[in-house]
Amino acid sequence: MPKPHLTFWYEFASPYSWLAAERIEALAAAADVELRWRPFLLGPIFAAQGWPSSPFNLYAAKGANMWRDIERQCELMDLPAPTRPEPFPQNGLLAARVATALPDATRPAFSRAVYRAEFTKGQPIADRAVIGEALRDCGLDAEPMLAAAESIENKSALRAATEEAGTFGIYGAPSFVTPSGELFWGNDRLEQALAWAKREA
Amino acid sequence: MPKPHLTFWYEFASPYSWLAAERIEALAAAADVELRWRPFLLGPIFAAQGWPSSPFNLYAAKGANMWRDIERQCELMDLPAPTRPEPFPQNGLLAARVATALPDATRPAFSRAVYRAEFTKGQPIADRAVIGEALRDCGLDAEPMLAAAESIENKSALRAATEEAGTFGIYGAPSFVTPSGELFWGNDRLEQALAWAKREA
Repeated sequence: MPKPHLTFWYEFASPYSWLAAERIEALAAAADVELRWRPFLLGPIFAAQGWPSSPFNLYAAKGANMWRDIERQCELMDLPAPTRPEPFPQNGLLAARVATALPDATRPAFSRAVYRAEFTKGQPIADRAVIGEALRDCGLDAEPMLAAAESIENKSALRAATEEAGTFGIYGAPSFVTPSGELFWGNDRLEQALAWAKREA
Repeated sequence: MPKPHLTFWYEFASPYSWLAAERIEALAAAADVELRWRPFLLGPIFAAQGWPSSPFNLYAAKGANMWRDIERQCELMDLPAPTRPEPFPQNGLLAARVATALPDATRPAFSRAVYRAEFTKGQPIADRAVIGEALRDCGLDAEPMLAAAESIENKSALRAATEEAGTFGIYGAPSFVTPSGELFWGNDRLEQALAWAKREA
């Protein structure tokens, strides 16, 4: 019998993607579900919905309460207090390209290192030095990975991933998709998505 | 010592307000938190954010996944399969006026009766006959309550409630506000809101 699996679609600029990235491995291990980490870009998906920026910026009351909620969730998750990066949202293109180029086994640790640089330390993740440090934090050689990230083939793989996300009906991040195409949106649906993946296997 | 309490802000057109209305009494009793049920109107709040309709209509992929999610939540909560009312969102003005006019003790049962008419049976809740039946379901005399709902004083109380919701930074429904003004948005935050209310008392 194939092991149940779940695809984790995440965007580097997204605070709730960060929270999911911090939680997902332990929960998936406990549920015996295999994960596939897939970075993508929300920008084109938001643009298709008519949003020139994050809805957290477009709607001030929603944005203010989101940051308060992230503070509360960090406290509940025993994470350090969050920092709002300036500007928000950060441009996650370089991070997503690097994550796309990485071998599957190193993508989770690299992704968390980027999120912590961004949301704990408030560092600019479009900056090659910040991404280089995240790579080195994971024991990787920064320069070759940064070069691989900028290859035509890799850029095109990330574009295709973002288009693929759209075909599943993804409209925000994080999102979780089971093998049958069942779509769950948001960090709050992670447990239900894992249970569904299990039921499908 | 005063008993902890929490204010539950809900809109009759909102599917997630319905789910919260189905869950909140048992959870609040278990947490020993007193509830205050406060109907309000999202229309003016959405309009102030520049939304001419519900975001679930404005963004098709988001709307489609919301209905799928409501189906899944109903299954998990042992509620009958939901029905999407036509049109969505329903005009919840009459229901909100009646709920505002009711004594505190009957507001929860009436509100649930309206939600079930709307989201289980797909009935039009702007219809006086539907609201009249919800009142009778709760053992209330429909005609005097409908008349009280249309009084100038009561209409003005609902307008004031909606303005008050705005002052707490409320931008969606359901929302939960603790005595200190801590704001939690969404059915998924109900448990955390109750825990916060307890901590404050």
